[in-house]
Amino acid sequence: MSDIQKESVLKAFQNRSATRAYDPARKISDGDFAYILELARLSPSSVGSEPWKFLIVQNKELRAKLKPVSWGMATQVDDASHLVVVLAKKNARYDSDFFGGVMDRRGLEGEAREKALAVYKKFQEDDIRITESERALFDWACKQTYIALGNMMSGAALIGIDSCPIEGFEYEAVNRILAEEGLLDPAEWGVSVMVTFGYRAKEIRPKSRKPVEEIVQWVE
Amino acid sequence: MSDIQKESVLKAFQNRSATRAYDPARKISDGDFAYILELARLSPSSVGSEPWKFLIVQNKELRAKLKPVSWGMATQVDDASHLVVVLAKKNARYDSDFFGGVMDRRGLEGEAREKALAVYKKFQEDDIRITESERALFDWACKQTYIALGNMMSGAALIGIDSCPIEGFEYEAVNRILAEEGLLDPAEWGVSVMVTFGYRAKEIRPKSRKPVEEIVQWVE
Repeated sequence: MSDIQKESVLKAFQNRSATRAYDPARKISDGDFAYILELARLSPSSVGSEPWKFLIVQNKELRAKLKPVSWGMATQVDDASHLVVVLAKKNARYDSDFFGGVMDRRGLEGEAREKALAVYKKFQEDDIRITESERALFDWACKQTYIALGNMMSGAALIGIDSCPIEGFEYEAVNRILAEEGLLDPAEWGVSVMVTFGYRAKEIRPKSRKPVEEIVQWVE
Repeated sequence: MSDIQKESVLKAFQNRSATRAYDPARKISDGDFAYILELARLSPSSVGSEPWKFLIVQNKELRAKLKPVSWGMATQVDDASHLVVVLAKKNARYDSDFFGGVMDRRGLEGEAREKALAVYKKFQEDDIRITESERALFDWACKQTYIALGNMMSGAALIGIDSCPIEGFEYEAVNRILAEEGLLDPAEWGVSVMVTFGYRAKEIRPKSRKPVEEIVQWVE
C-alpha cells in the first residue's frame, strides 16, 4: 500500500500556482530534476506513442533568444532554475515509421502487427479523425504531452518545487529558433508547450476555481 | 515542507498502468473519488480557462449504450468503479461569453479587461493560431483537459487506485449519445477523452518506455 496521504497531495495541489517570479538564488538539485523528468517519461500516452521530447534549456544565450518571442515567460526566464521546452511529434500517422517504432516497443509482429495497424488506422481515420489535417494530427500528439506536462508540475509540487506552464509565446518563432540551433527538425517535431521550474520568490495569491458543482455532473 | 518522498511518488508512477480488467467487487469510496475530482478541479489550464466538465457515468444503461461505440473500454466498462467522460468547451474564442467568464473569475474590469482581451486576441490569433479552425480551437481546450486527466490518474495512483485513459471510441457517436441523453449541448461541448477508475483484477505486465536519453536533451 501507498504511504501517501490524500491530505498531503491536496495540500500540494492547492499550493501549486503558476509561478511568475522565481528566487534566483535557489536551484533544483540534479536528483530532484531527474525525478521530475522520470515522471514525464513514465506518463501514459495514446496507444503508447510517447510522442514527446523534452529540451532542457539551461543555456543563457538560448534563453535570451527565446525571451523576446515568449511574453508568457518574460518575468521568469532569467531566474527559473530549469526551462523545459516540450516538443511533440508531427505526422504521427498510423502508417509512419514513427508508429512502426510504437509497434516495435509493444513487441507486435506478424499477424498481431497487421491487426494492430488496422485498429490504429480505424482509430485515427474514423474514430478520433485526426488524419483530416496535419494540425489535427499534431494537436493529438500535443494532447499527450499535456499529460506529461501535468505530471511534471504536480510531481514537482508534491516535493515543494514550483512551476509555470507557458503557452504564451510565438509558436512559429520558437520553432524557427530551435531549428536554427539544430535542436529540432521542423519536418518531424514542433514545440507543444513550455514549462519553467524553480522556487517561488514570494507568496502567490490563492487560486480561483469554478466550484465543483459547476464542472462535475453525476449520471446515476 | 512536504512529507511526500520522491521514492513513493516514483513507485506509484511505475505501478500505474492502463487497467483493462477491474475487480468488480471493489469500489472506490466516496471520499477517495472526491479527492480525484478535486485534483481535476485544481489543475491548471491556459489563461485559467478551465474549459472542462466531468460526467461521472455510473448509470448502467448509459454505460451499456456507450460500450458498443467504445472499443477501448469494452473490457472494463462493466466492472470499473467509476467512468468519467471528460468534456471540453467548443468555440472558446477570446471574444466569447465563455472568455468573459474567464475574465470575470480573474476580476478583470475596465482598462485591465480591455488589455487582457487584446493579449488573448493576439495569443489565439497570432501566437498559437487556434482561431484558424473550429477543430484547432476545440483541440486547444482538449489539451487543457489532458492536464486534468493526467492529474486524476496520477493522484489516483498515489493512493493505490487504478485507472485507464480511453481515446478508443467513436467520438461522433459518443457525442450524439450524450446529446440525446441531455448531457451535453453539442454547440457548446464535445467529448475530449474518457477515463475509468477502480482496482485492477490482476497484476499488469511491466511497462515499456523509451529510455530517458531518447526523450531528453540538455542544452547547457
